[in-house]
Amino acid sequence: MKHSFGSDNHSGVAPVIMEAIINANNEFQVAYGEDDITKRAVNEFKRVLGENAYPFFVFNGTGANIVSLKAMTNTFNSILCPESAHINMDECGAPEKLTGCKLVPLPCVNGKVTPETVKKALIGFGFQHHSQPKVLSISQPTELGTLYTPEEIEILARLMHEHDCYLHVDGSRISNASASLKMSIKSFTADLGVDAISFGGTKNGLLIGEAVVFFREELAKNFLYIRKQAGQLYSKNRFIAAQFEAYLKDDTNIKLASESNSMAKYLEQELKTVPRIKISRPVETNAVFAFVPRDLCDKLRELHYFYIWDEDTYEVRWMCSFNTTKADIDIFIKDIKRLVE
Amino acid sequence: MKHSFGSDNHSGVAPVIMEAIINANNEFQVAYGEDDITKRAVNEFKRVLGENAYPFFVFNGTGANIVSLKAMTNTFNSILCPESAHINMDECGAPEKLTGCKLVPLPCVNGKVTPETVKKALIGFGFQHHSQPKVLSISQPTELGTLYTPEEIEILARLMHEHDCYLHVDGSRISNASASLKMSIKSFTADLGVDAISFGGTKNGLLIGEAVVFFREELAKNFLYIRKQAGQLYSKNRFIAAQFEAYLKDDTNIKLASESNSMAKYLEQELKTVPRIKISRPVETNAVFAFVPRDLCDKLRELHYFYIWDEDTYEVRWMCSFNTTKADIDIFIKDIKRLVE
Amino acid sequence: MKHSFGSDNHSGVAPVIMEAIINANNEFQVAYGEDDITKRAVNEFKRVLGENAYPFFVFNGTGANIVSLKAMTNTFNSILCPESAHINMDECGAPEKLTGCKLVPLPCVNGKVTPETVKKALIGFGFQHHSQPKVLSISQPTELGTLYTPEEIEILARLMHEHDCYLHVDGSRISNASASLKMSIKSFTADLGVDAISFGGTKNGLLIGEAVVFFREELAKNFLYIRKQAGQLYSKNRFIAAQFEAYLKDDTNIKLASESNSMAKYLEQELKTVPRIKISRPVETNAVFAFVPRDLCDKLRELHYFYIWDEDTYEVRWMCSFNTTKADIDIFIKDIKRLVE
Amino acid sequence: MKHSFGSDNHSGVAPVIMEAIINANNEFQVAYGEDDITKRAVNEFKRVLGENAYPFFVFNGTGANIVSLKAMTNTFNSILCPESAHINMDECGAPEKLTGCKLVPLPCVNGKVTPETVKKALIGFGFQHHSQPKVLSISQPTELGTLYTPEEIEILARLMHEHDCYLHVDGSRISNASASLKMSIKSFTADLGVDAISFGGTKNGLLIGEAVVFFREELAKNFLYIRKQAGQLYSKNRFIAAQFEAYLKDDTNIKLASESNSMAKYLEQELKTVPRIKISRPVETNAVFAFVPRDLCDKLRELHYFYIWDEDTYEVRWMCSFNTTKADIDIFIKDIKRLVE
Repeated sequence: MKHSFGSDNHSGVAPVIMEAIINANNEFQVAYGEDDITKRAVNEFKRVLGENAYPFFVFNGTGANIVSLKAMTNTFNSILCPESAHINMDECGAPEKLTGCKLVPLPCVNGKVTPETVKKALIGFGFQHHSQPKVLSISQPTELGTLYTPEEIEILARLMHEHDCYLHVDGSRISNASASLKMSIKSFTADLGVDAISFGGTKNGLLIGEAVVFFREELAKNFLYIRKQAGQLYSKNRFIAAQFEAYLKDDTNIKLASESNSMAKYLEQELKTVPRIKISRPVETNAVFAFVPRDLCDKLRELHYFYIWDEDTYEVRWMCSFNTTKADIDIFIKDIKRLVE
Repeated sequence: MKHSFGSDNHSGVAPVIMEAIINANNEFQVAYGEDDITKRAVNEFKRVLGENAYPFFVFNGTGANIVSLKAMTNTFNSILCPESAHINMDECGAPEKLTGCKLVPLPCVNGKVTPETVKKALIGFGFQHHSQPKVLSISQPTELGTLYTPEEIEILARLMHEHDCYLHVDGSRISNASASLKMSIKSFTADLGVDAISFGGTKNGLLIGEAVVFFREELAKNFLYIRKQAGQLYSKNRFIAAQFEAYLKDDTNIKLASESNSMAKYLEQELKTVPRIKISRPVETNAVFAFVPRDLCDKLRELHYFYIWDEDTYEVRWMCSFNTTKADIDIFIKDIKRLVE
Repeated sequence: MKHSFGSDNHSGVAPVIMEAIINANNEFQVAYGEDDITKRAVNEFKRVLGENAYPFFVFNGTGANIVSLKAMTNTFNSILCPESAHINMDECGAPEKLTGCKLVPLPCVNGKVTPETVKKALIGFGFQHHSQPKVLSISQPTELGTLYTPEEIEILARLMHEHDCYLHVDGSRISNASASLKMSIKSFTADLGVDAISFGGTKNGLLIGEAVVFFREELAKNFLYIRKQAGQLYSKNRFIAAQFEAYLKDDTNIKLASESNSMAKYLEQELKTVPRIKISRPVETNAVFAFVPRDLCDKLRELHYFYIWDEDTYEVRWMCSFNTTKADIDIFIKDIKRLVE
Repeated sequence: MKHSFGSDNHSGVAPVIMEAIINANNEFQVAYGEDDITKRAVNEFKRVLGENAYPFFVFNGTGANIVSLKAMTNTFNSILCPESAHINMDECGAPEKLTGCKLVPLPCVNGKVTPETVKKALIGFGFQHHSQPKVLSISQPTELGTLYTPEEIEILARLMHEHDCYLHVDGSRISNASASLKMSIKSFTADLGVDAISFGGTKNGLLIGEAVVFFREELAKNFLYIRKQAGQLYSKNRFIAAQFEAYLKDDTNIKLASESNSMAKYLEQELKTVPRIKISRPVETNAVFAFVPRDLCDKLRELHYFYIWDEDTYEVRWMCSFNTTKADIDIFIKDIKRLVE
């Protein structure tokens, strides 16, 4: 397929990442993360996120979410999250299964919760019949492509800490957040009180690999066992580590994310010139959501690959990737315009 | 590190596999296994293992074992296995955690159980206090590098089926078994009644990737959900599929395994000429086990990377990989001989 | 404490039930439900609920709910329920822990869901990222004391079966439903397509004991193991069975429930004469909900035991028990009236 | 059935216990353990076991074992136990399911492990592939009716603590141990370093009820949630508490246990006069194990109720209960002697 707006998962591997993989294949290395490349990649993470960052490599986003949440909870806890959270909607119950916890879906707007909504769910502490709240998991950017402001994150972190709870960030596209906010990842996570990040890579040009990053030693303490027991320990870990080393070096991650972000902005701008299409969410990272009339949508899907987000309202999602080009978008816009006429 | 006998996990990626990965990176592809390359890899598996083989891709060996075992069990079942099984010794309780089942470790010799031993554990059916036996999991080759004969596998399969149970094969090195037995994998698994295989790749030259292969539709039925919920679904699955396509084509898997097997044979033969070293297990695939006097062992480990299997007896394990060379072994033997003198 | 409106759990044991316990203590009996009294109690259940009822005894309501739900699900399923369901609000995550499933809380009015609401959640079938819906669990009566009409139950059962799903009834007070509807329990459960009931006893005069009743053999098939593994198998089961035998005989359960129901009706009627108190839910069984001004409420709680259902709105719950008397209510009303003045 | 040697579960309720239940039924009480009777029963436990004992009530033995083990472990831990342990043999995998842990069955003699055997299993600490040992669970008395000496318990406790592990005692018949050792329960548990007890009641004259007793505050800390989530919280808890209050008062538990112990001694002594019967285990509490020739055994089982412990060797188990009488045994012995002739 020439180009897909279906997902940033549909893109392949960025050349600089592939090169790192090939270079990592030059000799024998100890397995299970005790190799030299893993050590270097850990150091890159510490350089980028601070010395008290505890990074661990895992295979995929679901894996990163469930093992980090397990490290933060006991089975009798609850995990609060926006209703639209990936952990709530798209992981086939993986968080409940691995952690044993209840997920408490909160009402949200454009994928974001407010402190007021969270506060209403911070109840039942000490009441033995009630799942004890322990973690709020937010996505940055959200599944709707929107962003929490640093102020919002700081308030949520403080709120959680006041209740002896943690703030987890599902950052499967966290580099896109950084590129858009024009702030380092550290400055809107660790520095504001975030306790753990699922740090994405695959959606932004990696072949495979995500990281879990804790900012508290207590969470890192038993994590090796949790990761292993969850089936997320990679024998030839150098090949994930090498990708992350290249990814974090020279702001590669930010550069790749800037590409997809700016393509989404370009797409949004072009779409504004198309009648019958209505942008439905603020375009803040690499996703464009819009309402598209059904007949138009159906015809367009014969030409381009993308998903319908809401079957009832015919809201669709177009994702841009690190390797989406202006030419890809121009063809797409041309096709829409032709169909609209 | 120049060469390691520590594990076949310490080797890197076979060139033909790396080439397949690079070639898979040429355009956009749908995610989560609905891409064209995955379809082709599935077809390769069916060509090799028969039309009633149901292959599914996962990340790693622990993943393959636990999701396949979960597909075969309910939480109140027990899973029988040799005491030395990887699922019993080296997965940090992952099988218990994901399946909820009891593991019943059976006495074994050289990693192998006998039908008599298994029979003794096939008890308590219908007794509500007793975990209900449902699966026997054997490793082929075993963790000790030994092999079950086809006759042994057939008898175990029949025994399990007579009790309405399944036979699972942990085949993290199954291509080595095939190369050694000079039989196709199908002929000593599917054809003899094996119900499911954890089909390894990573230890034999893949960058990443294992497969679960079922030979019963009933086991495959809900497997997509089980895999997803266990965090073993890969978004950019084409990159595992491309490896397996190349791996199974033209007997690449068998050729790679033959290399490591013959290197182990060569190592065994050379070791027989060394005083004070005593080969401790039949060398049937790519592992050589031996008793090494403690002083000698300690010095040798300063020069070469390998693991002590049993701290009490100073039995060690040397693994050969697809890219172990005669030269690597010659250096090793030379070093031992020098130390022995 | 003389009398409590806090819960029907605060009442003790009905004399006829205590007598049955004492009578069951006259000799040795085989354990774990293989005794004669258990057989007789099973027969009583079949007499009352039909020959295709499969009753099993457990300790408590949480136990009944979680083991029955586990029998109906695999871990990748979801369980739909009203937001206000006991399984969602008051079991500290027990359903998620035992079943591994996601609970999907649905909006509800007076504790009841509508077919339209349920339909919206019956989505994602066959989509590997989505927890697969499998059970709708409703409470009859609801936690708000209200009742589903037989027509509503029939429609929900049909809806679930059309989607290859089950309808579970949390019937911790199901005898109160029967007494209020003036219909046999069978006629508004088994006869309308209900697949499983958590059949309550403790809240209506039993010392201890609940039952799980399935109306499908497939659900009963492995239930002995599920119950045992969940820690819900009672060694001296005759003492629960004896209670249920007495409970079901001569409509004892209905008679006891009629008592608490009629006391709630009497309480409602008396409260209507009290200014400042506003009944907030239809009084259909043995619960009376009302809004009580905060100052009045606080003073009243110094005199009588009851719970505040909603701290924000000062909605309170008064439960009547099988042994609540008119005199208890008269004292209560007198106290309120005095405080109101 | 007039009398059964099948299990001490086959006996009924001791009169003093039944009386306590009846007396507890005199008024309304708050539910879920916040009632006055529960407070008194907790105090009784503290009187008997010391001020730093934290007692909690649960329904049954499996329940007591699994919730106490869960309080002591994380999912990646392992639980060591004698191969013959009830938690390993007779709970249908309940410990694995609730805790997620691996059970490591250890070789044992007459149901007892030695420090040497335990030491061999205290390995793999810090090794991420290995389930991390955390608890040793022993039964006192064992499932074979034998006893650990206080010295043995002290050594095991010290050994576990040296490895930052806990010692758990499955005390389903712990009062029988106390009666036999002529030592208070405290003196051979808390005083020697035991960290937690599953404190039995049902097998020694209670209608229903067991307790979990911790001797470390850290284990008690979150126990209310663990118990609730495991379905082991009793609404009308006063009725279990009342039994335990009566049970612990005036050494009732020891008196009842002394009865069954001395009956077992009497049975043993009488059996020694019977040819063809060979006592197979030391008779130290209320169980008598013996080898009985198959033909004799089969005939005897037509007259008396008891279980065959080992089908291969025809070893049988005869349990005495608090209400077994000399007359019951005399009849039994007379029947054997008649059959032997």
